[in-house]
Amino acid sequence: MQNLLAASINGEPVANMAAAVNLEERGLHYGDGLFETMLLRQGNVAAFERHMQRLAVGCERLAIAQQDGNAIEQEIKTLVRQTSQGIVKLIVTRGGGGRGYRGVAGATSNRMLMLYPYTPEIAPAPLTVRWCTTRLARNPLLAGVKHLNRLEQVLAQREWQDASIGEGLMLDLEDELVCATAGNLFVATEGALCTPDLRFSGVRGTMRARVLDVARELGYAVEECALRPQQLLDATEVFVTNAVRGIRPVTALEDRRWPIGALTRRLANALELW
Amino acid sequence: MQNLLAASINGEPVANMAAAVNLEERGLHYGDGLFETMLLRQGNVAAFERHMQRLAVGCERLAIAQQDGNAIEQEIKTLVRQTSQGIVKLIVTRGGGGRGYRGVAGATSNRMLMLYPYTPEIAPAPLTVRWCTTRLARNPLLAGVKHLNRLEQVLAQREWQDASIGEGLMLDLEDELVCATAGNLFVATEGALCTPDLRFSGVRGTMRARVLDVARELGYAVEECALRPQQLLDATEVFVTNAVRGIRPVTALEDRRWPIGALTRRLANALELW
Repeated sequence: MQNLLAASINGEPVANMAAAVNLEERGLHYGDGLFETMLLRQGNVAAFERHMQRLAVGCERLAIAQQDGNAIEQEIKTLVRQTSQGIVKLIVTRGGGGRGYRGVAGATSNRMLMLYPYTPEIAPAPLTVRWCTTRLARNPLLAGVKHLNRLEQVLAQREWQDASIGEGLMLDLEDELVCATAGNLFVATEGALCTPDLRFSGVRGTMRARVLDVARELGYAVEECALRPQQLLDATEVFVTNAVRGIRPVTALEDRRWPIGALTRRLANALELW
Repeated sequence: MQNLLAASINGEPVANMAAAVNLEERGLHYGDGLFETMLLRQGNVAAFERHMQRLAVGCERLAIAQQDGNAIEQEIKTLVRQTSQGIVKLIVTRGGGGRGYRGVAGATSNRMLMLYPYTPEIAPAPLTVRWCTTRLARNPLLAGVKHLNRLEQVLAQREWQDASIGEGLMLDLEDELVCATAGNLFVATEGALCTPDLRFSGVRGTMRARVLDVARELGYAVEECALRPQQLLDATEVFVTNAVRGIRPVTALEDRRWPIGALTRRLANALELW
């Protein structure tokens, strides 16, 4: 477990991490909020604007009062001080507290910033994955949003203890392949890139968006699709993305092996990840 | 909004509600926990054993370390002191904190107890309901469990502001009628009682269980079924249950009207609610 280094809530530094959050916080009672997990590298938050854009979309989707990205940027600077690398986690909740699902009309949202230690990877980290038996529910209302209702991911990660397995692949209840437990999934076949369209579940990752953009810039055929497990098995390259770990080439799933392919390398290179 | 009167976390009284919860609490980060909302009446928690049984089942389902019902009972007594009526809310989370979905193996779960003011109803409270457009996702893994992932219910209650409408009825994504936003649903037709079976979503309410038990004791035909909206419209009596509000007869839905029926009255009477 990583050690929380510093934190602030609504701009106020947190002195005592063990007693910091309002007991009526709706994030606790209902998972009524959103989060961003951001990579701090060379003193800067990678793709900060994309994180803020996704947060704004999430607030819009869940009717949570918008946060000010500039204020968050300043607070992150104060939070990280001389720290040049790590993870900055942001939680934004509906605010207003109180028992009852409805909440208070017009409430100002709360923001919590946390700094965790982390050393960014600068070389490809080959990934062995497994199938998760935990399935994702389908709900277009929440699909794509990085909200705080994450029991499915918690239960999925608890399926295995084998440290040699770095990720689990998750299907939805209609047998579509959606994502890894903490990342998006890409498959490549003959130079064409495909990633699940996330119309029913999953999170629209910021690294996923960066990969899609750069792949298009590089002239690759890119498709967001309803992905089936067989397409993964038939693919010539597979990789998992997230904002912190970047691009991780999937090299093994049960008996299936993949090389770290040319397309994967080219994308990682174009994004200055390896 | 109701005012939080008193609280304890893991048995320790909370002095400052505004800064009480660990910032790394998994209930906040992932909704990784369970809750119970209990009615305090005449100095006692109604159906306390049922709440503890459901909590134990929830812990088992989510692989959260079990809590000690006796310790909780004692803490509630300390919490409520001379208070004879109100609502006692219990949140139990996985514990162990930390960034990352997986959590810490073998962590002790956390418990948070909160006392809110509430005056129990002692007469039937006729309920006007509406259809919610927010749908429930299907996931057998979480169905029935009173977990902290409640964004669907939050969004459903935010659909209306009209104070004359007391509840919203929720369908799942396959058009089955599952529940009210904060209660279970029963329909009666010719003396036979039916409630959704909750195999894909919804919460197994303690009042739902009490109603099922007493209806069977009274000799009524009782069925847990896949309920369709038309069955509701065709029913002769409809009511909504929850642990705090008891049995609320549904008397209006759009143009449809129902009386407070004999079966509903008999159940409420047998449970000493009205």
